[in-house]
Amino acid sequence: MSLNPNQTQEIAELRSNPQATFRAVSPALEAVLYQPFPVLDHGFVRVIDYMGDDAAIVQAARVSYGTGTKKIQEDAGLINYLMRHRHSTPFEMCEIKFHVKLPIFVARQWIRHRTANVNEYSARYSIMDREFYIPAADKLAAQSRSNRQGRGELVEGAEAQRVFELLKQDASTAYDHYQEMLNEDEAGNIVNEEHKGLARELARMNLTLNYYTQWYWKIDLQNLMHFLSLRADSHAQYEIRVYAEVMLDLLKRWLPVTYEAFMNYRMGGASLSAKALKLLHLRLKGENPTFETSGMGKGEWNEFCQLFPVA
Amino acid sequence: MSLNPNQTQEIAELRSNPQATFRAVSPALEAVLYQPFPVLDHGFVRVIDYMGDDAAIVQAARVSYGTGTKKIQEDAGLINYLMRHRHSTPFEMCEIKFHVKLPIFVARQWIRHRTANVNEYSARYSIMDREFYIPAADKLAAQSRSNRQGRGELVEGAEAQRVFELLKQDASTAYDHYQEMLNEDEAGNIVNEEHKGLARELARMNLTLNYYTQWYWKIDLQNLMHFLSLRADSHAQYEIRVYAEVMLDLLKRWLPVTYEAFMNYRMGGASLSAKALKLLHLRLKGENPTFETSGMGKGEWNEFCQLFPVA
Amino acid sequence: MSLNPNQTQEIAELRSNPQATFRAVSPALEAVLYQPFPVLDHGFVRVIDYMGDDAAIVQAARVSYGTGTKKIQEDAGLINYLMRHRHSTPFEMCEIKFHVKLPIFVARQWIRHRTANVNEYSARYSIMDREFYIPAADKLAAQSRSNRQGRGELVEGAEAQRVFELLKQDASTAYDHYQEMLNEDEAGNIVNEEHKGLARELARMNLTLNYYTQWYWKIDLQNLMHFLSLRADSHAQYEIRVYAEVMLDLLKRWLPVTYEAFMNYRMGGASLSAKALKLLHLRLKGENPTFETSGMGKGEWNEFCQLFPVA
Amino acid sequence: MSLNPNQTQEIAELRSNPQATFRAVSPALEAVLYQPFPVLDHGFVRVIDYMGDDAAIVQAARVSYGTGTKKIQEDAGLINYLMRHRHSTPFEMCEIKFHVKLPIFVARQWIRHRTANVNEYSARYSIMDREFYIPAADKLAAQSRSNRQGRGELVEGAEAQRVFELLKQDASTAYDHYQEMLNEDEAGNIVNEEHKGLARELARMNLTLNYYTQWYWKIDLQNLMHFLSLRADSHAQYEIRVYAEVMLDLLKRWLPVTYEAFMNYRMGGASLSAKALKLLHLRLKGENPTFETSGMGKGEWNEFCQLFPVA
Repeated sequence: MSLNPNQTQEIAELRSNPQATFRAVSPALEAVLYQPFPVLDHGFVRVIDYMGDDAAIVQAARVSYGTGTKKIQEDAGLINYLMRHRHSTPFEMCEIKFHVKLPIFVARQWIRHRTANVNEYSARYSIMDREFYIPAADKLAAQSRSNRQGRGELVEGAEAQRVFELLKQDASTAYDHYQEMLNEDEAGNIVNEEHKGLARELARMNLTLNYYTQWYWKIDLQNLMHFLSLRADSHAQYEIRVYAEVMLDLLKRWLPVTYEAFMNYRMGGASLSAKALKLLHLRLKGENPTFETSGMGKGEWNEFCQLFPVA
Repeated sequence: MSLNPNQTQEIAELRSNPQATFRAVSPALEAVLYQPFPVLDHGFVRVIDYMGDDAAIVQAARVSYGTGTKKIQEDAGLINYLMRHRHSTPFEMCEIKFHVKLPIFVARQWIRHRTANVNEYSARYSIMDREFYIPAADKLAAQSRSNRQGRGELVEGAEAQRVFELLKQDASTAYDHYQEMLNEDEAGNIVNEEHKGLARELARMNLTLNYYTQWYWKIDLQNLMHFLSLRADSHAQYEIRVYAEVMLDLLKRWLPVTYEAFMNYRMGGASLSAKALKLLHLRLKGENPTFETSGMGKGEWNEFCQLFPVA
Repeated sequence: MSLNPNQTQEIAELRSNPQATFRAVSPALEAVLYQPFPVLDHGFVRVIDYMGDDAAIVQAARVSYGTGTKKIQEDAGLINYLMRHRHSTPFEMCEIKFHVKLPIFVARQWIRHRTANVNEYSARYSIMDREFYIPAADKLAAQSRSNRQGRGELVEGAEAQRVFELLKQDASTAYDHYQEMLNEDEAGNIVNEEHKGLARELARMNLTLNYYTQWYWKIDLQNLMHFLSLRADSHAQYEIRVYAEVMLDLLKRWLPVTYEAFMNYRMGGASLSAKALKLLHLRLKGENPTFETSGMGKGEWNEFCQLFPVA
Repeated sequence: MSLNPNQTQEIAELRSNPQATFRAVSPALEAVLYQPFPVLDHGFVRVIDYMGDDAAIVQAARVSYGTGTKKIQEDAGLINYLMRHRHSTPFEMCEIKFHVKLPIFVARQWIRHRTANVNEYSARYSIMDREFYIPAADKLAAQSRSNRQGRGELVEGAEAQRVFELLKQDASTAYDHYQEMLNEDEAGNIVNEEHKGLARELARMNLTLNYYTQWYWKIDLQNLMHFLSLRADSHAQYEIRVYAEVMLDLLKRWLPVTYEAFMNYRMGGASLSAKALKLLHLRLKGENPTFETSGMGKGEWNEFCQLFPVA
């Protein structure tokens, strides 16, 4: 991970200056505020700001339900109830802002979540850093032969060596030529006085998709949980999943009660179709429904058997 | 305005317990956090939470523009630049949460702004309070004869007396019957043991549109400014404009630099069409273009002449 | 249901004039285009326009997956796959526009779905019709004693008579006084020359929440299904559920394959928590986990036992 | 532009099969439905579907305003009124779906408009085509020296030759190595039986940002106009502006009345601040306000003088 010295100093300054607030405060999140958590070879996630805590969700829900419910439900019980019944609006009352550094091909997946606010580093205005992602040797996966979108075994040995060589060489060459076309060195000085230097907004097109970009990303809790349920899932691409996993840990610090409910109802849960429910009812009665009688397609049947293996 | 005693005590408690935070803090907004600002006869606006300050906008903009711009632009200059060029994403980096009490017919206008998070008091679950809006005598406007959506002169004298009488009487009767149908008194006790009591979700339909509801409403700064530019405008209905005006004052406390830019570029500014620009160019050259040569419709011509009166 | 004569004639004209198009066409939806389906005592739903068909969803998914997948998956299989794995973007490629007439208290629930486009009849500009909702005798439910938000048995006999009387009388009086305050008769003529007439935007506040309003409501298929999954659900209030049920039938006409997948995976399916999955695994192994060992709250345990009753 | 033969045949089939519809039809848009309009060296824009016409906007506005307004306003007048007063909801009643082929660095700008539906070709599932963008010689702009985000003069001569060489060579090498890492030839056959082939989701990171991607992009008219007002503007990067310009032409075909209003009020208009209005008033009175007395920053003053040059 690479924060530049300015950023490191800025963090130290921000963390040396606590101020008084009447707002809801999450001490466990304050303990790591602004601090970068490393992800991949040069990326990071850090929390820049947040709004609300577990109690803010309960408070918002009680506006909806009125005072009458106050006595019956304990806070954790209410949060579980909201999560189970997909009452989403109280969770929208919390908000969090991250600073993320990530490879461009990861950013392209990430940005598909539209219900967030984003400020990305602009390569129209500024010069990109020479930083690109190279997978670790134990993540260099081959294309799965069974699953069109999945990864299979590891690429190893000479094939792996060749892949590393190509990735590094092409990214490196791309940057050298990026700089040459810009006609600027790292300090921003003109190199060749006879050249005009290609516009930044054009030169950037020569960089490869593993170059790192960064952004501020702000999202409400409901949409964050939706993002995490998709991106911390085992089917998500490894390179985005590692970001989601760091954010899950930050969620645990921030909203411990909501985190537990989320892990139980979303991350660890499952959605069953009407057909799957019917099969389960038969199995619970001691019957052994088969694929042929299930009415399912092969894919769904396999997923069902994986979730509920026949003894 | 009517907070119930529980709410008043809760505010006192929240304001007696400052905590330390490393987040951006707005001292002028902290000074009034949780405190209700009265609006209309029973309504209020109060700030429950906020995220960010003027510096957070600048910080986010600089992520986009990179470090190179740092020296050139002062903070206020940068905020003015963003506002003038409608660069909206840095303004999305701030967020605010209000608790608002407002008549239902105002809530119906307000909710049309979709880019916000809302938790409203639910009359399916809870019993509505006996509180309804009656306009002040100096706001009892007649229908404008010239403008289909506007207000004209004041309704006065016997006609006004009759209006007040009808509004109060119908709202009051509606509530009496609401209670009777519910078969509950204010303390929630059953009144007539032989009655079942109509479901709350049905009984509520007997209330009139001037009954007060309340909600938590959370919005980012960019969308808040859009809301205010429409609802603090002189064409907005008085009953929603007074809420927007209170929120404008709260914006001034929260983000003084952004507030000034907003007042200059949005609230006090104007959008001109290509035709209007052409007329202005002619006028600046000393010519006197007329309606006939303007290519405008009558409505636009009148608006243009109001903005730039002929001497 | 009450369309005015102008509307009836407009529908006849629109339906007498088919035109040629190269766009995707749904013959079963064309067969009822513009035609009102009655809901409640005066409401309706009608389809004004639509974009796309089942094939358009498949087509969009195949842009994502590329040509390679074409051979393997049949269309229905692909739509089932998308629905099961919550791949939502292909479903966003269809769009539908409804014209809906509905009581204001129903409109207030409905509008909470923000991801739609709305044009509502404005009582600031125009005069409301004298039309209000009165429940049918077999829908006049009492408040549930066990479930805070639910309906219980029917209110009947003298109590019911009294409820009908109150609802009709208060709505009727409210409208009489609305007209009196406006100082206009139904034809828009001034009644009392000495009165100014209260502004429309104010007089409307005297109407009760069961008055009918109407709007154009346009939404993409993904968000429509989310709306239907919540509002056609048995927990939804009856008065909004009947609208959702009509829209379900229209969905079946429009997109028969998607409709089947939606009914199987959403309407007829269930979401299970990690704890519920664990209980099911124990039950499938022949064990009998109890509430005490379930780790569930009472509410969730009851819901679980209802879904999977012990034999 | 390169449609593959399958796509060309599919278009011919779709255009040979008109069907009857009762929906609103735009004959001028039907005339080019599905047909690709070339953009840049390999890109295109084509309309796949649309909903609504100019009359649909008027119809939706009249739901809001009620029948009373019908006589007064002609359709074009009403559309002008809506555009001038930023009444956005009637414009949301139209929808359009495009198929766009565009370089990845353009797609990254484009996707920042969040209020649209997108299905993008996925390089996780499928193999990218060997197609990349190289600017035309008369678009090979140097970095502006005065404007951080702008383009300056043309890069020419030997410098231009070197830029073309580098762009082509690096994109070409990146693709060769992409294929080598995949271990598949263009037909999808395995090349080296001893290699496993890198996962597609990883190999894609080696491609440069000028590679073409494609997507289906669906948006409502209000948000389309917002997109066009930013991206057809002279400050937008050339490579996205050319797409916006093609879409402007398609808008003109689809909704000729709305197009005229849009060009007058948005594309050709200007937003003035309170300070700018004050300066204009002084100028119209014959005074000559200066920068020093304007209260403006240097940037805004220059923009003002450019819009209203001193004779």
